[in-house]
This record gives sequence, C-alpha cells and structure tokens, in this order.
Amino acid sequence: MSNPNAAQAPVTVVGLGLMGQALAAAFLGNGHPTTVWNRSAAKADELVAKGAVLAPSVKDAVEASPLVVICVSDYDAVHELLDPVVGSLQGRTLVNMTSASSSQARGTSKWAVENKVGAYIDSAIMAIPPDVATDAAILLYSGPKSAFDEHEQTLKAVAPAGTKYLGEDHGLAALHDVALLTMMWGIENSFLHGVALLGTAGVKATEYLPLAKALGEMSLGFIEAYAAQIDSGDWPAEDSTIDTHVDAMDHLLDESKELGVNTEWPALITALGKRAIAEGHGPASYAAMVEVFRKPSA
Amino acid sequence: MSNPNAAQAPVTVVGLGLMGQALAAAFLGNGHPTTVWNRSAAKADELVAKGAVLAPSVKDAVEASPLVVICVSDYDAVHELLDPVVGSLQGRTLVNMTSASSSQARGTSKWAVENKVGAYIDSAIMAIPPDVATDAAILLYSGPKSAFDEHEQTLKAVAPAGTKYLGEDHGLAALHDVALLTMMWGIENSFLHGVALLGTAGVKATEYLPLAKALGEMSLGFIEAYAAQIDSGDWPAEDSTIDTHVDAMDHLLDESKELGVNTEWPALITALGKRAIAEGHGPASYAAMVEVFRKPSA
Ligand SMILES: NC(=O)c1ccc[n+]([C@@H]2O[C@H](COP(=O)([O-])OP(=O)(O)OC[C@H]3O[C@@H](n4cnc5c(N)ncnc54)[C@H](OP(=O)(O)O)[C@@H]3O)[C@@H](O)[C@H]2O)c1
Ligand SMILES: NC(=O)c1ccc[n+]([C@@H]2O[C@H](COP(=O)([O-])OP(=O)(O)OC[C@H]3O[C@@H](n4cnc5c(N)ncnc54)[C@H](OP(=O)(O)O)[C@@H]3O)[C@@H](O)[C@H]2O)c1
Repeated sequence: MSNPNAAQAPVTVVGLGLMGQALAAAFLGNGHPTTVWNRSAAKADELVAKGAVLAPSVKDAVEASPLVVICVSDYDAVHELLDPVVGSLQGRTLVNMTSASSSQARGTSKWAVENKVGAYIDSAIMAIPPDVATDAAILLYSGPKSAFDEHEQTLKAVAPAGTKYLGEDHGLAALHDVALLTMMWGIENSFLHGVALLGTAGVKATEYLPLAKALGEMSLGFIEAYAAQIDSGDWPAEDSTIDTHVDAMDHLLDESKELGVNTEWPALITALGKRAIAEGHGPASYAAMVEVFRKPSA
Repeated sequence: MSNPNAAQAPVTVVGLGLMGQALAAAFLGNGHPTTVWNRSAAKADELVAKGAVLAPSVKDAVEASPLVVICVSDYDAVHELLDPVVGSLQGRTLVNMTSASSSQARGTSKWAVENKVGAYIDSAIMAIPPDVATDAAILLYSGPKSAFDEHEQTLKAVAPAGTKYLGEDHGLAALHDVALLTMMWGIENSFLHGVALLGTAGVKATEYLPLAKALGEMSLGFIEAYAAQIDSGDWPAEDSTIDTHVDAMDHLLDESKELGVNTEWPALITALGKRAIAEGHGPASYAAMVEVFRKPSA
C-alpha cells in the first residue's frame, strides 16, 4: 500500500496519443507530479489544465523524472525520439508501453544496455484508453525485477488491479500480449460461429448466451487440467481421446456445411485434430494437441 | 422435487454401449425400475446384477415402460432396431440420445409422427460416461415440452444439475451440441496456441494459465455484450473497432511466423477479420463479425 501522505514520485509521459493521454491522466489522478511531451504540443492542453507540466523538449521531459514512460505509434518513433537524448536516460527507468513484437522488445533492451539506460522495462497494454486507471485494465511488464519493484506503486495508477510482472526476459510482455489476444479471439469467434449455427433455427444470441458461458467456464476448467499435463509431458486421456474429439469435429463440420454457415473455422479445428492423430496422438488427451500448435503447419 | 417416498417411474434403455450402460446405471441409482436391451446381451450383466431387468427382445423392452431411452452408435442403428416395433411406441415417449445432426433429428421427428409414436424427444449428451449422474453432465433436450415436463424428473437422474430443455424444434439439441463444441475447441485451441507461443520463451503452461483464465473470463464478458448487439442488429464500437482488432491480429500472425509456431490458427483469425473489413464492418464492434460467420466462406 502506498502511504497517502507521502509525496508521490514524479513521472514523465512521452507521447500523448489516445493512450498516452489516458496514461498521463492516470498518473495525475494519483497525485504524481507528471511531465508530458508530444510532437503535436496541443494534445497536452487538457493535461496541463489538470496540472501536468509540458516540457519544451524530449530531453527536458526525460530529465524531469526518474521514471519515463513512452507510448507512441511504433518502435521507429521510439528510436526517433529517444536516440538523440539517450544520455539523459542514464540513472533513469524507461518503461516502453508502445506495442511491439518480442524481438523488438528484446532488441530495445540491448539498445538500452549499450546506451547505459538506467533500467529498461517493456510493457504491453491490454486495455483501451477508457479502461486505463480502472480495474478492467491489464498491464504486462517484463525486464529487471528490481526496477519494476521500485516503480510498481507508480505504475499501478494505470492498472490498479491488473499490474502484472512477468519476468526478466524483455520479450515476455509482448509474448503474453499476443497469447492472450489469441485466447480472446478464439473465444469470440467460437461464440459467433455458434450464434451463426443456432441462428439458422431462429435462436437468438442472447438465448444461446447462458449455455455458451457455462460451456466456456467448463472449458476454462479443462485447460487447467491440460496445462498440468503439458508441463508434465504426459497426457493420458482421462476424459475423451483426440480420436473421439475428431469424430465430433467431423460432425460439427458437416452441420456447418449443411446449414450454410462458416466452414473455415470448423474445417481448421478438424484439420488440426486429424494432424494430431496422424502424429500418433489419437489415444491421448486433448492436451497433446499442443504438439500441433508448436509446429508452423502441416 | 421428486417425492422420495413415491414409487419412481419405470424406464427402458435400449443400447448398452459405454454410454447406454452409464445411463441405465443412473436410472437404477435413482430407484427407477429399469428395463434394458442390447444387441450383445452380455453387456447387461452388471446392470442386471444391480437390479435391471434384461428384456428378451426390443419389443419387450419398449413395452416395459412409458419412457424409452435409446442410445446406440448412429441413426441407422436406431431405425434398424425401432422400425420393426414402432407400433409398440404408441402412447409412449421416445427419447433419442444417439448423436445426430439437426436434420437427422428433425427427420426422425417426422418418422415419429407418421408412425404415431406417443412423443418424440431428441437429446444430445454433453458428457462422457463417467460424468453421467454427476453435476458435470449436461443433457440437452428438444421436442414437445409437455412430454419433456412429464419425464423431466426421471431424466434428471442422468444430469442432476445440467438437464436443459431448449424448445419444440427437434433440431435444437443437436444444434446446441455443435455450437457448444465449437466453443470448447475454440477455447482449448487458443489456449494451446498461446502455450506454444510462450513455450518459445520457456514459459510453462501452468505459469501462463492464471492470466489465460483471467482473459478467458473477460472474454466471456465481451460475448455477453456482443450477444445483445447481435440481437439488436446494431453494433457500435463501444470498445475497439474491428479495424483496431485487425492491426493486432496481423501482429499475432507475425509473432507466430517469427517464432515458428502454428500460423494457421492466427492466419484464419486475421483472414476472417479482414473479410469483415472488406464487407464494410471495419468501424463496427467485434459483434459484426457474426456476419462473416453466417456465410459459408469468402
Ligand atoms: N489505443 C488503444 O486502444 C491501445 C491499446 C493497447 C495498446 N496501444 C498501443 O499504444 C501505442 C499508442 O497508441 P495510441 O492509441 O495512443 O495511438 P495514437 O492515438 O495514434 O497516437 C500515436 C502517438 O505517437 C506519436 N508519434 C507517432 N509517430 C511519431 C514520430 N515519428 N515522432 C513523434 N511522435 C510520434 C503521435 O504524435 P502526434 O500526436 O504528434 O501525431 C501520438 O502521440 C501504440 O503502440 C498502440 O499499439 C493502444
Ligand atoms: N461415449 C461418450 O463419451 C459419448 C458422449 C456423448 C455422446 N455419445 C453418443 O452416445 C451414443 C452411444 O455411444 P457409446 O459411447 O455408448 O458407443 P459404443 O460404446 O460404441 O456403443 C454402441 C452401442 O450401439 C449398439 N449398436 C450399434 N449398431 C447397432 C445395430 N446395428 N443394432 C443394434 N445395436 C447397435 C451397440 O451394440 P453392441 O454392444 O451389440 O455392439 C452398443 O450398444 C453415440 O451416438 C455417441 O455419439 C457418446
């Protein structure tokens, strides 16, 4: 818990797009002296009205705080802005919230070491600007734990309930970001495919929803069992075998064809299941499908 | 609630494969006088030891109870067994738990009407045999509500917490079955794709699990919002637009390629997203993706 009577630590935000503005507002809202900079200075107006200090240059912005958060369009913009002032980052912690691939994040950590940046933390924002500073925000962090620990209280302004430190490997935030996105789209697409199937019989999406959610919860229980099997490298079929799953997958594909709804989603599900069988995993639990997902394709 | 002192209603189970045996055991366990029949009579031995009556013919089995449950491999077997004795089904309720497509279920309901079967109910079993008679079992039913109501107490022996009546259209049980299966595989595959991505950085499945479950719960919240939008036919982007989603999808696909894990799953996610944009849904919420799922393919 932060001491509400203690002075809050100063923080700098470079980049005031939709997200950068939300970030700076979150820090201001928690009482942090907040310095901001943006290429188009006018985007700072509202923040300045709320008490932020607009720095006249990136260099001034960086030098204003021990913690510098950058959130711009991409890593080219990050380097365009920070390369000329990297000397000023010595002794400071740079938290990069710009979306990136894991290799960009790891590359930037090398750049940070080479240029003697005090500490470099890569972050992935799993939230839209209106969710920032609410319990709906998830912010992922990877890089040196000591630097994260030092600034965790300040960073919690952005994601009070969802601030997650993942490990020293700078690629982890970006990797978890994409892993979680594939989870989200997988659930959403599967629901929409089901809605399309049931729509052929006049069933409304809201009518289907309670069962879909119940099956969703059940499936989140299944993945828990599969996770343990995957880590043990052993996947006995305690429930159904992949052979049994694939019979039912064929059935799903047939219904989708017969009813004239999307067939690509079930066709891929079936193809992946059949590939697992071809690789000898027919009698295993569904956890063994991870072997299929670990390879690029057929 | 059933009156524990009342005599339980008699029930017949035709077909004693893995599932039929579990069904008959569930009825016996709830005190129902249970008559059974199977092509290979030896499969009745254990049930007879528990108190079941083995009928000498399908006809005798059918005539023993007002409620007849059949659970065999497929609908050809259903007709092979029941066509010769269909006269005996007059005045009785037939519940077909054999897996089927919605058109098979609807076709069998016509057959039942033409042959004056008392009432026909189609059912889909969302459970494996060991889950039968436990709270993990979900049994879906569609057909005449009055017949379902009459036998609901008896049928609850199979799925005490998961007995769901879906409506008069006999195809509904089969359709919900496949819709729920696509939901299950969508969640499982997405989790496994994430496990594969994170595995490249040495992250264990059980380490990833808590965040995956948190995102899963969040996504089950998103589909609730989308369901309401779909039914209203209006999908304003209250959170992200499909345009924004597709940028992130490209990013997921790039990571999957770069890390050498499965690319077909993210490639299909991306292709479907881009198709929605091509159809003019770029500025809409993700709910509008249902339009893509309602069509067979590109
Ligand atoms: N918005 C979201 O929902 C969301 C969610 C998760 C993650 N993110 C990530 O957050 C980052 C920022 O997103 P956003 O929504 O704030 O984008 P945005 O509204 O388009 O803002 C982009 C920002 O980058 C600056 N910029 C771009 N190129 C620059 C350059 N060459 N030199 C200097 N400044 C440059 C822009 O400055 P000007 O104002 O001068 O153009 C602006 O501050 C992105 O990496 C995005 O993927 C966003
Ligand atoms: N097991 C599961 O996990 C599960 C889950 C959900 C739904 N289901 C569905 O439940 C149904 C039965 O599955 P199951 O696991 O019990 O299968 P199973 O163990 O293979 O049993 C098949 C049953 O069908 C009978 N049969 C097949 N062809 C026949 C014919 N021409 N004439 C007479 N009887 C015939 C078999 O009789 P014999 O014993 O004489 O061969 C046996 O009783 C299937 O539709 C399946 O999709 C099963």
